[in-house]
Amino acid sequence: MATLIAPSHHSRVEDAEALRNAFKGWGADDKAIIAILGHRNVHQRQEIRKAYEEIYQEDLIKRLESEISGDFERAMYRWMLQPADRDAVLVNVAIKNGTKDYHVIAEIACVLSAEELLAVRRAYHRRYKCSLEEDVAANTTGNLRQLLVGLVTSYRYEGDEINVKFSQTEANVLHESVKEKKGNSEEVIRILTTRSKTQLVATFNRYRDEHGISISKKLLDQTSDDFHKVLHTAIRCINDHKKYYEKVLRNAVKKFGTDEDGLSRVIVTRAEKDLKDIKELYYKRNSVHLEDEVSKETSGDYKKFLLTLLGK
Amino acid sequence: MATLIAPSHHSRVEDAEALRNAFKGWGADDKAIIAILGHRNVHQRQEIRKAYEEIYQEDLIKRLESEISGDFERAMYRWMLQPADRDAVLVNVAIKNGTKDYHVIAEIACVLSAEELLAVRRAYHRRYKCSLEEDVAANTTGNLRQLLVGLVTSYRYEGDEINVKFSQTEANVLHESVKEKKGNSEEVIRILTTRSKTQLVATFNRYRDEHGISISKKLLDQTSDDFHKVLHTAIRCINDHKKYYEKVLRNAVKKFGTDEDGLSRVIVTRAEKDLKDIKELYYKRNSVHLEDEVSKETSGDYKKFLLTLLGK
Repeated sequence: MATLIAPSHHSRVEDAEALRNAFKGWGADDKAIIAILGHRNVHQRQEIRKAYEEIYQEDLIKRLESEISGDFERAMYRWMLQPADRDAVLVNVAIKNGTKDYHVIAEIACVLSAEELLAVRRAYHRRYKCSLEEDVAANTTGNLRQLLVGLVTSYRYEGDEINVKFSQTEANVLHESVKEKKGNSEEVIRILTTRSKTQLVATFNRYRDEHGISISKKLLDQTSDDFHKVLHTAIRCINDHKKYYEKVLRNAVKKFGTDEDGLSRVIVTRAEKDLKDIKELYYKRNSVHLEDEVSKETSGDYKKFLLTLLGK
Repeated sequence: MATLIAPSHHSRVEDAEALRNAFKGWGADDKAIIAILGHRNVHQRQEIRKAYEEIYQEDLIKRLESEISGDFERAMYRWMLQPADRDAVLVNVAIKNGTKDYHVIAEIACVLSAEELLAVRRAYHRRYKCSLEEDVAANTTGNLRQLLVGLVTSYRYEGDEINVKFSQTEANVLHESVKEKKGNSEEVIRILTTRSKTQLVATFNRYRDEHGISISKKLLDQTSDDFHKVLHTAIRCINDHKKYYEKVLRNAVKKFGTDEDGLSRVIVTRAEKDLKDIKELYYKRNSVHLEDEVSKETSGDYKKFLLTLLGK
């Protein structure tokens, strides 16, 4: 369930006018901006953006970027984009910013449905004038490239059929490969990038039954290189993306200095989807409310905005 | 331009009734079947199929399969399917029939537009309850798998921007790889499977300028293994798919015993698109009309059907 609290009715024109008022004078009225945009769903935000453009001949997102700054601006920017556009930006930043955030690419490729991932690839074309896989492939090599390109270009079958024989043989293939660090990555890549998620979960379950430990835990022993890190992320996202996001949030707030990118990414991406479930998982696992942690670790408008999206 | 001659108006109900009459008695009236279905465009054929199902509670394609046989039946079956469905069937047969017709997979992946290829992947899900790349990957290995999976999962950018620097460096990469048979296939696969077709054509042109020979001709010296054969097909289809199809037709009729699969595939697939241009290329290259060759090499209803689609 979502955490976003949005009214069922709103006036796009009144919202656009209120935002215009919030931009007046020296320094924007951030409280008013959050009160409006922090309480509108994706459709409503697009409507407000259109109305704003029609009335003031100005792009609302560009104006927001000039009015606010820092982590608050970055989070608001991602919030204001359509989901497919936002994910295209996240992938592009992950490839090009030099910090090698490959896990963000794996996360998007493995959490989204087949059609949602396609929408991101279409958005990437429009925005960057090249294909998503083109940029991923040009900035990676070896088995890391094969794995990442395979994940972002997948169009997985989404039926619920399970082939028990495959899950058995492929659990073995995964085991053999994980055992020795330099195992057969080719077959691991084939399995991870082409099988349906339902089939893969059956394979991961089979692995756990046979070896008494989950494959993602087993992989933790050897996630030293980028390939294994991406593999680990992909498996976690396919297996249970809510648990994965809980961990991202936990690491983000526990990190010395806080990982604002991770924190914003999960909250902005999931607020309209399943952030309520992720919050509950967070409380179960950490015995502390996510909102309280966010309150402690962030400040100012950025904090207000995140707490608003968290449904506070 | 197309060769198919279809009326702008037709009655779907009358067509369905006429087909029903053609099926009556012992042995179908093949002439009547060809006279109707050989002169209807893809939309009209789907309408007839729907009308037939409504009136007679029977699938027209299944009925056709039981009424006609041999090469005629196979060609008609492909003709009656929606293009995306037909291509899904062609890929499936190419993977599973043991004859390793990998060039058919490369052809479909490289000739279709990004959205057309997606439609084939969707059709594959519906028809085979798994993903297209899943079947391709499970039935191949090594660099052949990487290349084929990369081609079928591509969603190429379709803008007409050309990066001159890339075309230069990547023409060199291709040259280095082609020089030594066991060259760096990883980079060749990246280039061929992710760059836009416009960019690739610029790269191939650059190659020709630098080396005085086209890369596809150069590759001919070493198309002994499946990987190089698929590479050759992909390059030819991206460079000029009409010239490629002309060659497929030429080989099909010149082959001892005629390659009916190739002949039917090209004629059925292109009759509504650009078969007229391919026919002209054929005449230019061979100084004989394609229709005359088809007349000589085929017979019976199969011949009548192909000639009808050829616009005779």
